[in-house]
Amino acid sequence: MKVFTDYIFINTKKQKEIVNITDRVFEAVKKSGVKEGMVLVNAMHITASVFINDEESGLKEDFLKWLEELAPVKPDYKHHLTGEDNADAHLKRTIMGREVVVAITKGQLDFGPWEQIFYGEFDGMRRKRVLVKVIGIG
Amino acid sequence: MKVFTDYIFINTKKQKEIVNITDRVFEAVKKSGVKEGMVLVNAMHITASVFINDEESGLKEDFLKWLEELAPVKPDYKHHLTGEDNADAHLKRTIMGREVVVAITKGQLDFGPWEQIFYGEFDGMRRKRVLVKVIGIG
Amino acid sequence: MKVFTDYIFINTKKQKEIVNITDRVFEAVKKSGVKEGMVLVNAMHITASVFINDEESGLKEDFLKWLEELAPVKPDYKHHLTGEDNADAHLKRTIMGREVVVAITKGQLDFGPWEQIFYGEFDGMRRKRVLVKVIGIG
Repeated sequence: MKVFTDYIFINTKKQKEIVNITDRVFEAVKKSGVKEGMVLVNAMHITASVFINDEESGLKEDFLKWLEELAPVKPDYKHHLTGEDNADAHLKRTIMGREVVVAITKGQLDFGPWEQIFYGEFDGMRRKRVLVKVIGIG
Repeated sequence: MKVFTDYIFINTKKQKEIVNITDRVFEAVKKSGVKEGMVLVNAMHITASVFINDEESGLKEDFLKWLEELAPVKPDYKHHLTGEDNADAHLKRTIMGREVVVAITKGQLDFGPWEQIFYGEFDGMRRKRVLVKVIGIG
Repeated sequence: MKVFTDYIFINTKKQKEIVNITDRVFEAVKKSGVKEGMVLVNAMHITASVFINDEESGLKEDFLKWLEELAPVKPDYKHHLTGEDNADAHLKRTIMGREVVVAITKGQLDFGPWEQIFYGEFDGMRRKRVLVKVIGIG
């Protein structure tokens, strides 16, 4: 059994941004030497997300607009009594999810036709990390 | 260590439908020979979901109605500029989740009293796939 | 390869409550002897959640208020025709998620700076269980 750990560093240009990280996850899987197993990919920050959806720019805009409707930026969150101003980002990340687990089959990410892995940043413009943990057999 | 892969094919009669796949997942676990480990079950399509909840017809109706409130069918999504008409399905699947990971203990799905695995289809009436990946020891 | 199973019992004082279970999960990981691998932590009940966010009391209030907006307590769910009165709890748990998978690196939960594991109870005041399944190498 092999276990392999890697970290992806991301620093978005915008405060809220969706970044395709599929290739970087696949690089880690190749480095791991695992041919059959699973890879866990998770945001290490609680105002960011890792999720799987479609690489389509309009849809990415739809996601950000929709999240703003469901979990708006606004002043009156209790969390803001601590001096923070990002409660909306904690809620947005909750809808999108912290992590994905992806099957590795014959050394490949075992994906359907349109699946791509995204990092969703909701409080960005600073250096953050994504964890990639691979387990399986070579 | 054993690793086993299977695929479940689903073609719903309705465009939006919730299908209980617990027995089909358990069949794959039995075929794998794994007695202690984990099983990943994920939709391979980005307008569908795999989630765990209760086998109760009223609750399934509640889920579909609630998703329509949170992520309605409507024309003005940016994604529709591509010619697609299913942006709501991408959002609905995001709320319900892409995947579940379930513990396997003594050869069984290690479930609480009411846990059942469902496939949630939000853009159906065509052949789609669910991936089942089992890892563990026999 | 090691596989280890543990259960955490929780009985909240309030019907809706968020409980930090990070230390109890880490105890299970230590008992497992796994130094490199993954741990699955999931609610075994379909009106409860396991999720990762921040240990901050204001934010926990924000979560409960927000969930009440998105999935309110109300009489007219179809699920209530069965005699149940907790459909809102099924929906709330869906937003928060059933489970987390956390990487174990050098015998530690491989967390970012603020990550903590929480049990989210939405129909409580009775004894419930969380499953902890650890897999990896010692």
